[in-house]
Amino acid sequence: MKKIAIQGIAGSFHEDAARKYFGDEEIEVVECRSFQSVCELIDADKVSIAVMAIENSIAGSILQNYSLIRDYHLRVIGETYIHIQMNLMMLPGGKKEDIKTIYSHPVAIRQCVEYIEKYFPNAKIVENQDTAKSGKLLVEENLRDAAAIGNLRTAEIYGLEVLETGIESNKKNYTRFWILSKHANQHVKTNKASLCFEVGHYYGALARVLNIFADNKINLNKIQSVPIVGKPNEYTMHVDVEYDSEENYEKAIHLVLKNVSSLSILGEYVRGELEISNQ
Amino acid sequence: MKKIAIQGIAGSFHEDAARKYFGDEEIEVVECRSFQSVCELIDADKVSIAVMAIENSIAGSILQNYSLIRDYHLRVIGETYIHIQMNLMMLPGGKKEDIKTIYSHPVAIRQCVEYIEKYFPNAKIVENQDTAKSGKLLVEENLRDAAAIGNLRTAEIYGLEVLETGIESNKKNYTRFWILSKHANQHVKTNKASLCFEVGHYYGALARVLNIFADNKINLNKIQSVPIVGKPNEYTMHVDVEYDSEENYEKAIHLVLKNVSSLSILGEYVRGELEISNQ
Repeated sequence: MKKIAIQGIAGSFHEDAARKYFGDEEIEVVECRSFQSVCELIDADKVSIAVMAIENSIAGSILQNYSLIRDYHLRVIGETYIHIQMNLMMLPGGKKEDIKTIYSHPVAIRQCVEYIEKYFPNAKIVENQDTAKSGKLLVEENLRDAAAIGNLRTAEIYGLEVLETGIESNKKNYTRFWILSKHANQHVKTNKASLCFEVGHYYGALARVLNIFADNKINLNKIQSVPIVGKPNEYTMHVDVEYDSEENYEKAIHLVLKNVSSLSILGEYVRGELEISNQ
Repeated sequence: MKKIAIQGIAGSFHEDAARKYFGDEEIEVVECRSFQSVCELIDADKVSIAVMAIENSIAGSILQNYSLIRDYHLRVIGETYIHIQMNLMMLPGGKKEDIKTIYSHPVAIRQCVEYIEKYFPNAKIVENQDTAKSGKLLVEENLRDAAAIGNLRTAEIYGLEVLETGIESNKKNYTRFWILSKHANQHVKTNKASLCFEVGHYYGALARVLNIFADNKINLNKIQSVPIVGKPNEYTMHVDVEYDSEENYEKAIHLVLKNVSSLSILGEYVRGELEISNQ
């Protein structure tokens, strides 16, 4: 059985992502306290694969995770997108009018603040490390006058009753997760790559790189300059590209290498589909 | 006296930024509970200027603030950078060995976690909305066995004693703040601009825009693609450019307009200096 390291506990959005990516394959999720310990587990060969959030449509890229992936020399071997839906849950038999306290992760609370203010203006809000942990807490401490906000998987695992679904304000919020390993994809036909590089500090340095991609029919899917702290006017570029022809991609990379310093290929993989239902 | 709206209270990093930008000018800081209420105050002409964090060197761009600025049609009229230093403070006469609880903002706590774990492994950590509020709380509730983590201005305003300075792990962390108004800069010679635009979905669409900047000796200072949720494969580009000649800049913008859809000029202003001491 594949062992997959995730940050957080069973029932979290990270577990959702792992199960979505691996589909019918049997997997064992290894719970970690932090993103760093996820990387340490792979580094020490305790697990061969990790699933890690890399960007969210509201909050943007998780730059700290980019740094970890580079520091630990991990490779991206796949990606998956999870539509972030929030739900209100209680112990079975719980009633909304009994809710005095609501537990959840601070980001989840922010995403549901309109719902909370409308329906539970007097509830005490308690921030927790994890949405799944908030659900687990209700069970562990038998909290009958409290609710948790989290995903459906949390309710399923901990036997909670879902009183309301889709309570988040932004209905089109998704998080992108990377599947990481120590070793790159091999013998797999890929159509997407994630790269980091630095360009010289002269007019048109970046334009030159983008021209190479365009000339080779490679689509730019993401671009973000990240300042290198301590080096004014120097940037690391984070770029995702998509291509139909691996041959064109190889040709372009060869040319790009001559125009950038320190190119890192974080990974080449099969692009994930972003399905957001139009509720 | 100029009225400046900030998110947070006096003593916060936002107040630091306002005082740094306006220097010797007398200003009155108007405290707001959220970034949205900052925008509402300007919109209702209750204040003429706001100061708002827009990116941090560790966490990246604050995309929600970009959205607010666009939603409220605000203009960037200036920028300033604040080096984020964290300090441990107590009521006067307090001793480190008495510290049982440490109050601060969650992000500040994360930035000082190595220091806390090393010197105060048993302290209870309480998350607060604001670093300045954490300091104020010590005074209001006369908490003699507690410390707050925040900037020096907080200690100064609330009469706290600083027991340790520079307790953050990353010594080169800075936050960039924008100075915002309802109206654009006029009669000011500018050398930096912040733009948002969308490009067509064809090979080289973005490269074409960057070529125009390069041809006109305009430096790209920041670039970030932000997915437009609900529209797969469409992006808003956030771009900062720097230029010596306003004439070249005007010429480039004129050409860029023909190659993008919905260009927004968030503002043209004088670039701020990023000074980070090498401790």
